[in-house]
Amino acid sequence: MKTLAENRAFGGVQGVYSHAARTTGCDMTFGLFLPAEAEEGPVPVLWFLSGLTCTHENAMVKAGAQQWAAAEGIALVFPDTSPRGADVADDAAYDLGQGAGFYVNAAQAPWVPHFRMWDYVTTELPEALFKAFPLDEGRQAISGHSMGGHGALTIAMSIPGRFRSVSAFAPIAHPTASEWGRKQFAAYLGPDESAWAAHDATLLMRKRGFDGPVLVDQGSSDQFLDLLRPEALAEAMAARRQEGAFRMQRGYDHSYFFISTFMEEHVTFHSRALYD
Amino acid sequence: MKTLAENRAFGGVQGVYSHAARTTGCDMTFGLFLPAEAEEGPVPVLWFLSGLTCTHENAMVKAGAQQWAAAEGIALVFPDTSPRGADVADDAAYDLGQGAGFYVNAAQAPWVPHFRMWDYVTTELPEALFKAFPLDEGRQAISGHSMGGHGALTIAMSIPGRFRSVSAFAPIAHPTASEWGRKQFAAYLGPDESAWAAHDATLLMRKRGFDGPVLVDQGSSDQFLDLLRPEALAEAMAARRQEGAFRMQRGYDHSYFFISTFMEEHVTFHSRALYD
Repeated sequence: MKTLAENRAFGGVQGVYSHAARTTGCDMTFGLFLPAEAEEGPVPVLWFLSGLTCTHENAMVKAGAQQWAAAEGIALVFPDTSPRGADVADDAAYDLGQGAGFYVNAAQAPWVPHFRMWDYVTTELPEALFKAFPLDEGRQAISGHSMGGHGALTIAMSIPGRFRSVSAFAPIAHPTASEWGRKQFAAYLGPDESAWAAHDATLLMRKRGFDGPVLVDQGSSDQFLDLLRPEALAEAMAARRQEGAFRMQRGYDHSYFFISTFMEEHVTFHSRALYD
Repeated sequence: MKTLAENRAFGGVQGVYSHAARTTGCDMTFGLFLPAEAEEGPVPVLWFLSGLTCTHENAMVKAGAQQWAAAEGIALVFPDTSPRGADVADDAAYDLGQGAGFYVNAAQAPWVPHFRMWDYVTTELPEALFKAFPLDEGRQAISGHSMGGHGALTIAMSIPGRFRSVSAFAPIAHPTASEWGRKQFAAYLGPDESAWAAHDATLLMRKRGFDGPVLVDQGSSDQFLDLLRPEALAEAMAARRQEGAFRMQRGYDHSYFFISTFMEEHVTFHSRALYD
């Protein structure tokens, strides 16, 4: 584990670290905020998965989450969104390849072997984190934005018992029925659509739901609403009788201004579950 | 206007009044809570429409709304749910006739002429209230439970500009597709289903939505979930990009214990809109 930066922030430390990852076969960088309480012992942890084109850095510097996490004594993890490097496959489009890992394990060329973001985020990075930092593995929550909201929801529903709560800002809610999803799943997972269902939050909500509270915020002026398909997830949550809230925030768009506006409510939402 | 009772409550007055109503052709009773601020001048008003089998009294004594309305300086109106009296048609079933007006104007026998709850709640009672009490006609909001949630949502969407906000507890969300709705609409409105659409919150949400915030709470253990159809409304709200929140509250049922638990949040939700 290599320390790239550590800055005092809100009484704690905002760090940036990198490590050689076996799952993705490249060096991976992540951000980690530790609140002051981490000096005394393990603290609960909130994962934040970012969207298309983002690195570990965007949410870390623009989402405004540290102030609320510090107030609640919660750590924040900001993983990268894909493998990186000159020998890692890429695509000219912003929504495929580097910066667009979609939190899946690729099954076909040219994305094998590096594009294994599912395994990286659900297995390798947690192992590295809980070994190296004072984080409480029994108290985890997860959130994310756009592609990262998709990642947060699908991961939370697929690993029952790991996360106490899940939230999302403008998630890609029904990727098997959207060009934000169908294009990438066809590329990474292949043409067999039956393999896609495990990575669709709406389909997972219909099938099993989440054993804990769910909070979804969506801006009504989001420029990508037709790609996000929030109505499919809202219907599935209600039909599942899923504990939680789906909120349409009038006038907000897809940006970090939207995220930062509602970040306090998301952190306190997770805090209630983490300290329950 | 006849005063049936007035009790000091939370620094204001909880009154019960009756008046001879022309729309329903019978005496109608309602509850009105006036906060202390009403002694100084007109105050904003929150309507609360009740559900099947209720009179003006149920929510008035069991919903716990007065404490929060007093804190916000807001009046509360609790109308009855149907015409009443020995000469008013009725049915042996709890969900038709007296106590089950469904907030529509009946078009056929034996429900004509008394069953005109739409006109009573949207026209006659407001006229009587704004004439007799210090209420601010320009600052109105509306809420309700079950059949009353249906009434609140359909009235709010059908009279644009009158209400600044609307909320509902476990509303009958899609009555044209439920036996809580089809039975009553067939009886009151007649077999032409095209006349029913104007009284279906999901269909109105799909068609026009509401120009203001909407808050819907639904209990996940509600014994009437299959009749309420919340998933249809949740989908329609998200598809409409309707400002607001749909919340599934884990373990809550259809009772006033559910209502009173979340009443504070509904009153403060409306207060924000009323004082905006």
